[in-house]
Amino acid sequence: MLRLTLDVDDVLADTHEKLVNIVLNDFGTTLTEKELYSRALRELLHPKQLTKLHRIINTPGFFTDINVKKGAVETVYKLSKFYEIYIATACMEFPNSFKDKFDWLHKNFPFIPWTNIVFCGYKSIINSDYLIDDHVRNLVAFKGEGILFSAPHNLNDHTFRRVSSWNDVSELFLPIV
Amino acid sequence: MLRLTLDVDDVLADTHEKLVNIVLNDFGTTLTEKELYSRALRELLHPKQLTKLHRIINTPGFFTDINVKKGAVETVYKLSKFYEIYIATACMEFPNSFKDKFDWLHKNFPFIPWTNIVFCGYKSIINSDYLIDDHVRNLVAFKGEGILFSAPHNLNDHTFRRVSSWNDVSELFLPIV
Repeated sequence: MLRLTLDVDDVLADTHEKLVNIVLNDFGTTLTEKELYSRALRELLHPKQLTKLHRIINTPGFFTDINVKKGAVETVYKLSKFYEIYIATACMEFPNSFKDKFDWLHKNFPFIPWTNIVFCGYKSIINSDYLIDDHVRNLVAFKGEGILFSAPHNLNDHTFRRVSSWNDVSELFLPIV
Repeated sequence: MLRLTLDVDDVLADTHEKLVNIVLNDFGTTLTEKELYSRALRELLHPKQLTKLHRIINTPGFFTDINVKKGAVETVYKLSKFYEIYIATACMEFPNSFKDKFDWLHKNFPFIPWTNIVFCGYKSIINSDYLIDDHVRNLVAFKGEGILFSAPHNLNDHTFRRVSSWNDVSELFLPIV
């Protein structure tokens, strides 16, 4: 069985949506919602705003109410019948998020056992046939075949095969029935 | 640079020592210290005692005061000049220990960046040239070359190259100076 590894933020979880809502509601910004979905937040926000956002992300509870991406649960469940599924999230930068992230995964993807969950930094450590991730740097470091999941911060990359939704993932990885 | 991945419990950290002290001091056992170092605790303790121990391990704070194995810090520091060092601990079974474990590593091995720390379940996900681990099951799952670090629960295994101390690791992996 081939191994398929899935990233969490902006792949399984709509983390960008939560960040945009925080910026719109609490940051007193002049940026529009459309602009905040057009490119990386690190290119749009001031350094002080980024520091504030980093602190918010590392606050216990931040991850608890993030929405699951549309179609992710059903598709990952179907994929688990054909692939050995691992979940690998580069969350070592946010040590206060570990427990929340683990609980979020357990709540939303209860069919993925804890044995197949990985918290890491660099993704070059992941031994897998495929990795679906929204960060080009993670796919570059990865030694298997990387698939880029579209997100505001990767829209200009053309070096990796791209999927833009869980429906795309389904079409790419599941057999035609 | 070859990649060398190190386990935490009973490799970098003397977790067995802490467990033995808990059993001797709090479990009202007739087992001697010598017996508790002779084989796996799961073979020596009753199921109810194992359940209690499992609960203790998953209590926040358990990991905080575990001793570092003799010679580990100096040797890992020297190894980091010749190998790309990763630390991979199968701690997903104990979600309440994540933060403590991360803090313990940061405190005792501050020269290992968070980018190179991995919390996982099955170690088949680790992409590394070498893995030093005390569990035969982890080495069997690992696709690189596994080195067994001696511990009470692995004394009868003869399938992997064995090291019994950080001095042994030093002799095996560091160049003669």
